[in-house]
Amino acid sequence: MNRFRIAVVGTGAIGSYYGGKLAVAGRDVHFLIRGDLSDVKRDGLRIRGEGQELHVANVQAANTTKEIGACDLVLIALKATANAQLVELIPPLLDENTILMTLQNGLGNEEFLAEHFGAERVMAGLCFICLSRVSRTVTECYDYGHISIGEFARPPLPRTHQIAAEFQESGIQCNVVENLILERWRKLVWNIPFNGLSILAGGADTAKILADETLRAATVATMNEVVDAANACGFSLEREAVAEQMKRTETMGNYKPSTLLDFEAGKPLEIEPIWGEPLRRARAAGASVPRMEMIYALLKQIDRSSKAGRPSA
Amino acid sequence: MNRFRIAVVGTGAIGSYYGGKLAVAGRDVHFLIRGDLSDVKRDGLRIRGEGQELHVANVQAANTTKEIGACDLVLIALKATANAQLVELIPPLLDENTILMTLQNGLGNEEFLAEHFGAERVMAGLCFICLSRVSRTVTECYDYGHISIGEFARPPLPRTHQIAAEFQESGIQCNVVENLILERWRKLVWNIPFNGLSILAGGADTAKILADETLRAATVATMNEVVDAANACGFSLEREAVAEQMKRTETMGNYKPSTLLDFEAGKPLEIEPIWGEPLRRARAAGASVPRMEMIYALLKQIDRSSKAGRPSA
Repeated sequence: MNRFRIAVVGTGAIGSYYGGKLAVAGRDVHFLIRGDLSDVKRDGLRIRGEGQELHVANVQAANTTKEIGACDLVLIALKATANAQLVELIPPLLDENTILMTLQNGLGNEEFLAEHFGAERVMAGLCFICLSRVSRTVTECYDYGHISIGEFARPPLPRTHQIAAEFQESGIQCNVVENLILERWRKLVWNIPFNGLSILAGGADTAKILADETLRAATVATMNEVVDAANACGFSLEREAVAEQMKRTETMGNYKPSTLLDFEAGKPLEIEPIWGEPLRRARAAGASVPRMEMIYALLKQIDRSSKAGRPSA
Repeated sequence: MNRFRIAVVGTGAIGSYYGGKLAVAGRDVHFLIRGDLSDVKRDGLRIRGEGQELHVANVQAANTTKEIGACDLVLIALKATANAQLVELIPPLLDENTILMTLQNGLGNEEFLAEHFGAERVMAGLCFICLSRVSRTVTECYDYGHISIGEFARPPLPRTHQIAAEFQESGIQCNVVENLILERWRKLVWNIPFNGLSILAGGADTAKILADETLRAATVATMNEVVDAANACGFSLEREAVAEQMKRTETMGNYKPSTLLDFEAGKPLEIEPIWGEPLRRARAAGASVPRMEMIYALLKQIDRSSKAGRPSA
């Protein structure tokens, strides 16, 4: 793929990390950054972790997608709460075959993109990684994981494997998944309890949640509820996913899930994709999901409080 | 009952209100106030509500229970989190027939008193009322309810009815209950969801909880769970309790449950009597209580955060 043009829409932690890895490996990556570009132009983007630092020196950054122009692949890493903006942001990036790959959390993002730009463009990447953007130009990586990529509503295509190869050649652990929505549910097994309870428990990181016997039990019970919900929705998600993810969490240290960071920064929370949409699908499938209901109800209220001007926001 | 001596241990909102009503009606009431007595000695105690103000002018207040001495009835209105202090506070108030009436919330308080001072002394009063102490001397009453009194682990005795008559003659709506623990579960149907969710939803008063469809549904579902738990524990609590209490809540306006006020004031929360002990009894009886488990787990963590010095505390 020569001069395969890649756009990164949303240069937060996820966009900076994946776009940065691809850029350092020599890919033609264009970052949309809608604020002041001077820091990024001067300092580049830095990705720190495991005692290493990757430096993207000459960042191709633009304030608008019109400046970027048509690309082959668009990595969408905006918060899902900002999805409405994509209706304006995406069109300048499109040519006939442009692929839209959402790196966002939860359920409903592929459907949104499909509705506005056509289902055949849509792919997704599920990012199993612990990141935090500590400044405009620096992203810290706490725990290395992989990205699972797949097609929306169909099995992998040749392009899926080509993109996975591009990622792997850029030092990104990447695998191709047969059934994207099954994998989304697998990720939700972690995000639904940990992202939610970390906020509701008064700002508890993963280490704190694991250390409290009662809260840990509530977490595991919620994970099992999500597995049941996925199965009720027709996805054969195995029960072992719970134990696997708990084990993986032990290695994270005192990690703060992205939604907790958003909450602490006074930003809107990705409530609908992570909790609302899974809950609605689970209910429609007849699953009993009392814990998901409780977490959703409380987060919705807290999110509203936060918009109404909490001191913490 | 001539010179029937009454002690109030814990002159917070509940102690001020019930002790104050009895004192204004001419009863011989002695308040334990362990801080500075000068405000109370100078200003008395005031109970405001429904456009009225009751004023206890010459308050019999003491710093220690030794100064108060033996009483016929001790109203215990400390927070249950301070129960350990009762082991020292109660003995100076006792003679052979002293009755200990706990006005505290939740399950386990009668058992605590019975263990330390003998089961035959123990009664309880369940306060269905909305109060808030706004200063050392002023208590606001937002919604008038009743107090249900009963004996610990036995049906009412003649003394139960005598005390109910004393209360009624002092303008306190009071009834005698046959089965105290059944009534405790009835009260928990309200306290478990509202006291807990008001905190977890970021400081939501009753009006806010009722106004949010999702949170209201979670509240009703939790109430139903508590009714099921009570029945699993052998108490015939009727399902209609849920609708009745929701209806009563509509009249409360923007009431803040006592535990939310405690939380906002940085005080320890009455977690074990309101959530922990009911949860343990429900589980022992084989009830499925996912919502109670979730609320308990989160509150325990928040309470610990609060002790560790949250900004709000």
